[in-house]
Amino acid sequence: MSVTNNGAIILKNQVLVDVGINPMSQKFYIELEPPSLLNNQADVDRLIKSLDNHYHNPVVPLAMMNKVSEVLRRADWRVTVTLARFGESWKLIDIEPGDTTGHNFGLAIDLGTTTVVCYLIDLNSGEIIGVAADYNGQVVLGEDILTRIYRASDPGGIKIMQSAVVDTLNNLISRLEREHKINRLQIYAAAVGANTTMMHLLLGLDPSRICMAPYIPVINLPGFMRASEIGLLVNPHAPLYCLPSVGSYVGGDIVGGILASGLHKKPELALFVDIGTNGEMILGNRDWLVACAGAAGPALEGGVARHGMRAEPGAVYQVRIDPETKKVSYSTIGGQKARGICGSGLIDCLAELLLAGIINRAGKFKGDQKEFVVVPASESQTGKDITFTQVDIDNIMRTKGAVNAALEVMLEGVGCQLADIETFYAAGAFGQYLDLESAITIGLYPDLPRERMIRLGNSSGEGARLVLISDQSRREAEEISRGITYFELNASEVFMNKFVGSKFLPHTNLDYYPTVKEKMFRRGLLQE
Amino acid sequence: MSVTNNGAIILKNQVLVDVGINPMSQKFYIELEPPSLLNNQADVDRLIKSLDNHYHNPVVPLAMMNKVSEVLRRADWRVTVTLARFGESWKLIDIEPGDTTGHNFGLAIDLGTTTVVCYLIDLNSGEIIGVAADYNGQVVLGEDILTRIYRASDPGGIKIMQSAVVDTLNNLISRLEREHKINRLQIYAAAVGANTTMMHLLLGLDPSRICMAPYIPVINLPGFMRASEIGLLVNPHAPLYCLPSVGSYVGGDIVGGILASGLHKKPELALFVDIGTNGEMILGNRDWLVACAGAAGPALEGGVARHGMRAEPGAVYQVRIDPETKKVSYSTIGGQKARGICGSGLIDCLAELLLAGIINRAGKFKGDQKEFVVVPASESQTGKDITFTQVDIDNIMRTKGAVNAALEVMLEGVGCQLADIETFYAAGAFGQYLDLESAITIGLYPDLPRERMIRLGNSSGEGARLVLISDQSRREAEEISRGITYFELNASEVFMNKFVGSKFLPHTNLDYYPTVKEKMFRRGLLQE
Repeated sequence: MSVTNNGAIILKNQVLVDVGINPMSQKFYIELEPPSLLNNQADVDRLIKSLDNHYHNPVVPLAMMNKVSEVLRRADWRVTVTLARFGESWKLIDIEPGDTTGHNFGLAIDLGTTTVVCYLIDLNSGEIIGVAADYNGQVVLGEDILTRIYRASDPGGIKIMQSAVVDTLNNLISRLEREHKINRLQIYAAAVGANTTMMHLLLGLDPSRICMAPYIPVINLPGFMRASEIGLLVNPHAPLYCLPSVGSYVGGDIVGGILASGLHKKPELALFVDIGTNGEMILGNRDWLVACAGAAGPALEGGVARHGMRAEPGAVYQVRIDPETKKVSYSTIGGQKARGICGSGLIDCLAELLLAGIINRAGKFKGDQKEFVVVPASESQTGKDITFTQVDIDNIMRTKGAVNAALEVMLEGVGCQLADIETFYAAGAFGQYLDLESAITIGLYPDLPRERMIRLGNSSGEGARLVLISDQSRREAEEISRGITYFELNASEVFMNKFVGSKFLPHTNLDYYPTVKEKMFRRGLLQE
Repeated sequence: MSVTNNGAIILKNQVLVDVGINPMSQKFYIELEPPSLLNNQADVDRLIKSLDNHYHNPVVPLAMMNKVSEVLRRADWRVTVTLARFGESWKLIDIEPGDTTGHNFGLAIDLGTTTVVCYLIDLNSGEIIGVAADYNGQVVLGEDILTRIYRASDPGGIKIMQSAVVDTLNNLISRLEREHKINRLQIYAAAVGANTTMMHLLLGLDPSRICMAPYIPVINLPGFMRASEIGLLVNPHAPLYCLPSVGSYVGGDIVGGILASGLHKKPELALFVDIGTNGEMILGNRDWLVACAGAAGPALEGGVARHGMRAEPGAVYQVRIDPETKKVSYSTIGGQKARGICGSGLIDCLAELLLAGIINRAGKFKGDQKEFVVVPASESQTGKDITFTQVDIDNIMRTKGAVNAALEVMLEGVGCQLADIETFYAAGAFGQYLDLESAITIGLYPDLPRERMIRLGNSSGEGARLVLISDQSRREAEEISRGITYFELNASEVFMNKFVGSKFLPHTNLDYYPTVKEKMFRRGLLQE
């Protein structure tokens, strides 16, 4: 199954951060003087010596040595070498006859729990030249992270999980190879943005302690390894770099997002939010960064709502309710007949119900109503009403409440207020397609001037692209990962108190949401 | 078959160079604070952070990551870690419960064309704690280097050659493990001194261009790799380091020898000679080094003499001829009945025949004699006379002449004279057991004050030991390899001229050999 046709998943990244090109793998065309009795250096040493000092003393893998001798002679001493960075040292990972410097590719991977997106990158220009996406092959082994961690604890379970996602990646690589007429052996580097559990399962690491107090991963900074060590079918010597995690619940995907936003280099206070199955929040600027995370729950992904579904063709992703007539209008992904409601549709429902005065600020239907028909049976694919229920509302309110509470714990922790936030970044596919006004209306996002609210799109993939093409970005990612202060909410009583008190739309204190307050007032939903 | 009982092969090294202990692999006992909600670093990151800054940012192989988590918990956060140096970076190669710092072993390997010697080294003290030796398993595939290079060019031939020598090494490792009650997984580093062809065949590199002009090896400085990459059964992550070569005919065994002699750090002019199947010579001091090499030929190893044999039990290794009575006395290895004459015995024969006046300075029997009976049939194991023939003499004269000519080419090249040499180092097993006086008498070695003539013993193995226990030595080895000027004799007309003119005993110019001149004069073999 492919999701490439689904516009809701593949994103063309906007470039927020401009980095100099200094990619993980670099190609050089070299013409060497052939050996003679008076110039009888060994083949590999001759080649190495011809390199610029900057790349001095690269490691030459044993498996490359014979190849160097063979290709040098076959190519009449005119060759292209590929050097890849493995941490602080360079490694000679390929030698080809003639000038192939134009063919230098990398793979930026956004490895999500549900979806995997591979961006084919031209490492010379840093540009995206192709994209392929699919569901994570682990989905059939377990929908959510906890199930996968549980299944991984079976004998051989980690290997099974690893194979599933590596197969997914290899299929995507095949597709990119075919569609863009490249040779996968010329994919010379791969970088991955993934949450901590996905990173563990990709690398075959034991995730079992991630979900048990005190929530300790095997590793947060796995650094560089060979892509072939996990079975990735690219150049066998190509480096694989996983964006470093902060902890069990703030992964490389988030660190990649911060990198992509550039908030860690700016003076103003920013809030970065990635809401999906988990909700992660980063608050900070160039001087400090704090993070927290919590199981946002699948409420927002359509996973638990009565008529919820993934953002696939047939999903209602946009809902409007006329405040006068209470008439509903909606749009579906792909324009097909409606099958259910995806996350952004659910948020729209909640916001529109509030603004239409059908529910109150506590999220309860006024009167005896128990549900709201979004798509009548006559229009749906299933032949049944597609509804939005009180239970659905309560679920979303809980998630929203958790996000609000977490944010307040963080703000208090650093002595700031909601009003101090100057820039807001919405990360993740969910953040990209969610209606901004609806998210603000229900209080999921803060109520800032709209020009200071930035959708990052697939910032995990963009972070992976940045570390592929810029070693400076790679260093920044590691600094971010080491420098973030993590608030462990699982252990916080303050959080529980805030959580209980945060179940109002958009917020207990309406003054934090001036535009929503104004809208509700205009519609006569608030008494002055 | 084992040659460990043969005193002629296993040598206890005299230590000429005193280096500080800074071994290739180092162990540290660490007690960690267990993780908690307030101290929730990932396992591997926690371990790494506990290391001294000197070892900061070691590479952690993917295969070690799960093991770190497992052992830390099993050992209640008290563990011993092993860090190995791979070039400029450290790698975490083992973690064990409790304090195992006392068990830190290395393997110094003298990989000869004929014989392989493995020294088990205590990496904490730098001391040799065990030795095992055997014939190189490649011998059955080809006695000499050229045959092996030829056989390696068959399809799959390189792999066959590699397996043969790796099997030999693994058998020696098993023996050391048994005899010294150690665990091979606690052998954390291996270093090899080998000639260039042997190094190629050990690493599976194509040796075919080593013996064809312009004599280009695949690589001279192979650097660090994992011992397991070639199938060596020690700790799977242990580094394997091959002493670097200078060129096709001056290998890591010679660089190791220079290292062991320390001549590269001393002000005085020294000559280093390793005569075996090949003859290698190094001339120089702390400011400069020149080298040359030539096929000394198997003449000196007993390979081609009519009754020549290897230095095995039953070989005549010492011969004396009474100048008055011309009566012969001899000694055999192991004291057994004589089977043949080994290299040192042949040199003795030639020297004694000269000093007894039986041959002249041109190496010809006086009168009609064609051979000299060393062991009469009645005393030999074979029941036949063991003789030393005119053909044998001619062969040795050729080898000696080649050595003299090469030395003179080198001396001329640097503007020095034989008399300028201040110290002489005799390397290799042959150099160790050869009678010094006989070698001087025939002009194979220079005629220096005896206290300035030093037998190095197994200096290739000693060089391997030095790079194992001292990173400074490893750097010196690489500097030596890069800094030596190599005289290619194969292309030298001057060499051929010198060669033709150098076939006198001990030398055309007797004044270079004052003690020999004096001895011959005393015996009436020279007219004033």
